[in-house]
Amino acid sequence: MRLNSREQFLRLDVEDPLASIREQFDLPPRLTYLDGNSLGAMPREARNRLSEAMSQWAHGLISSWNNAGWADAPIRVGDKIGRLLGARPSEVVLGDTTSVNLYKALNAALSLHRGGAILTDEQNFPTDLYIAEAVAKKWGVQLRRVPRNQLGEAIQHGVAVVTATHVDYRTGHMLDLRELTKAAHDAGALFVWDLCHSAGAVPLDLNGAEVDLAVGCTYKFLNGGPGAPAYIFAARRFHGDLNNPIPGWFGHDHPFDFDGGYRPAPDARRFLTGTPAILSVAALEAAIDLWLTIDIALVRSKSLVLADLLIDQVMRQCEGFGLELASPQEPATRGSQVSFRHPNAYGLVRALAEVGIVGDHRPPDIARFGLTPLYTRYVDMWDAAEQLSDVLRRRTYLEPRFEVRAGVP
Amino acid sequence: MRLNSREQFLRLDVEDPLASIREQFDLPPRLTYLDGNSLGAMPREARNRLSEAMSQWAHGLISSWNNAGWADAPIRVGDKIGRLLGARPSEVVLGDTTSVNLYKALNAALSLHRGGAILTDEQNFPTDLYIAEAVAKKWGVQLRRVPRNQLGEAIQHGVAVVTATHVDYRTGHMLDLRELTKAAHDAGALFVWDLCHSAGAVPLDLNGAEVDLAVGCTYKFLNGGPGAPAYIFAARRFHGDLNNPIPGWFGHDHPFDFDGGYRPAPDARRFLTGTPAILSVAALEAAIDLWLTIDIALVRSKSLVLADLLIDQVMRQCEGFGLELASPQEPATRGSQVSFRHPNAYGLVRALAEVGIVGDHRPPDIARFGLTPLYTRYVDMWDAAEQLSDVLRRRTYLEPRFEVRAGVP
Repeated sequence: MRLNSREQFLRLDVEDPLASIREQFDLPPRLTYLDGNSLGAMPREARNRLSEAMSQWAHGLISSWNNAGWADAPIRVGDKIGRLLGARPSEVVLGDTTSVNLYKALNAALSLHRGGAILTDEQNFPTDLYIAEAVAKKWGVQLRRVPRNQLGEAIQHGVAVVTATHVDYRTGHMLDLRELTKAAHDAGALFVWDLCHSAGAVPLDLNGAEVDLAVGCTYKFLNGGPGAPAYIFAARRFHGDLNNPIPGWFGHDHPFDFDGGYRPAPDARRFLTGTPAILSVAALEAAIDLWLTIDIALVRSKSLVLADLLIDQVMRQCEGFGLELASPQEPATRGSQVSFRHPNAYGLVRALAEVGIVGDHRPPDIARFGLTPLYTRYVDMWDAAEQLSDVLRRRTYLEPRFEVRAGVP
Repeated sequence: MRLNSREQFLRLDVEDPLASIREQFDLPPRLTYLDGNSLGAMPREARNRLSEAMSQWAHGLISSWNNAGWADAPIRVGDKIGRLLGARPSEVVLGDTTSVNLYKALNAALSLHRGGAILTDEQNFPTDLYIAEAVAKKWGVQLRRVPRNQLGEAIQHGVAVVTATHVDYRTGHMLDLRELTKAAHDAGALFVWDLCHSAGAVPLDLNGAEVDLAVGCTYKFLNGGPGAPAYIFAARRFHGDLNNPIPGWFGHDHPFDFDGGYRPAPDARRFLTGTPAILSVAALEAAIDLWLTIDIALVRSKSLVLADLLIDQVMRQCEGFGLELASPQEPATRGSQVSFRHPNAYGLVRALAEVGIVGDHRPPDIARFGLTPLYTRYVDMWDAAEQLSDVLRRRTYLEPRFEVRAGVP
């Protein structure tokens, strides 16, 4: 789609059925925030929920574990997230971090397939690689790292578990979840998906795709808050067979019996370990409740138009400045971000931030822009492209103050 | 110490150097809260910190990872907790749950001592037993469970790692941390301590006692909030040798390089795994900052007097009702709680709660009362004993509504 004036973008915003949702977020004025794929914006309701949780703590004290639903939160919120993933009740629980959950999932999967290798994308998110490597070493199996585009053909006999991030954090490249899950099954393997850049970004149907295990964070597209607890999905057909390598009391069938012997809960709850971080959960639940009012199909279609517009504007306005599209051109293989390569990607992102356009840098040369249709406006695409073009023309990204790197998750 | 009137207790409160600290907590009026060893009360400052963190999220967005100190929080708050434990900087980090940290510590310890058994207290907190069992199974080593009072003599050749909870959650019995650590070292073993009921309850000097590894929660005596992140201590002398079995990006030497290969941080930071739950950390840090203004010696001496008074009053006022002291008589082997055995302990605790005295039940027959001198008053001991005596006399604890059990962590 090609538009030629800021007014045309503004008109799209007026017609946008999701436009009113932005009001439910507390966003700084005059900021074009295109980093919701790193940290989602704050739903206004999160403040109320936190305040409520603080009162439950102060005034309900210990009784709030029962009376305020704290003890059930990992299951309740897990089920709500499950609805966004295309999972059934009791297939998703909330807790720990994505890394810890990936550790649990890989161990659980390997314990069903002794002897086979772990296969992964060599460009997978670093923590996923560290975890996969540790688990492979622990089980004495091989870790095979292949280029992302060769994952499908590498799923062969001898592979016990495949793990990959559905939508790549650098480029936004999206794998075919259904097809690769099927390929794994055909090879007698299980697939453990990392959905960090998928949930809230693209429609998901884990049950429809017969996904085995999946993990993901809640602080990106789901807007759960900085470091909000992660989730783990385990398909019902495995519930009796998958064991949590870190069996803790919250995964016990009856945690409050204080039983000296571990009896795992019958469903995905067995993947819980310790006590849930209730204050972080409270903010997250506000975000998930908002998500449950949203039609993800609308989100996806808006995301695709946003991406299309951003790519078109940038490619036109920034031609000749060494910027290269790093994201797939093909919408079907793209998540909800647009990335460009540039030798000075870091400086570009920093210089843009100074003029109110917040994107993100990923080493070595990626400048990425997250599209979060609940609060990203069409006009943001115009403004981002315009400022990017300005920064490139004026070469402000070369200023010395942009040389010192300050990393963010 | 024997007192005979409520006025005498009130006088102790007037003279208490810690009395003013109670004002810093948001507590319900007319409630005698003796369950701060399960969930600590809320410091008023926690509300401010949470509000601040929400603003950092809403308005600082992704930049708050650097600008608001989020990325360093596990180290910064870990170091602060370290000061309460008698640890040096970089020996304590904040993150995950106690169960997950115990899993990490036991694995790290065992990896230095291949082949030996894990020894533990058979009455250890259930989640600790589940974790110890899983780790023993994973390493193919024996898990020896012995009665708590035989732990010392069971530390023998062939034991690689001993793990126990310093202060027992049922009885408040406190082990000799220094002596048992030494016994472990003499036998060529490492000791992994669970300090859940110790930090903020009794003075600790981990370095002085040459402790190897320790873990603990922050939501009991430390008042960090429901399910606040836990901590892990690793003595500096092991920093180069101990490996995190769940190596994640936050434990990488340079997390934001997004390096495909794992290089552990040189110190206890290597025990971090995933992204910290910032909102929960914010409330916790308020609580820890309050703790850093407190003289733990005052806390301990007040705790001992509180216990002494409670035991004396209950033993006198409740004589002949089948109540038996489950906590040690000897103050030196008692943490900061007083527990009684009674066949109807659950009903007793429920009936007491209805008259505003909040204690806790632990199966099968323990009624426990946590003493948290930052906000527990001397007069609370009188009131608790008086109400307990009343409940026992009137046998209200036998009422049918107290039969349905509702568990709390």
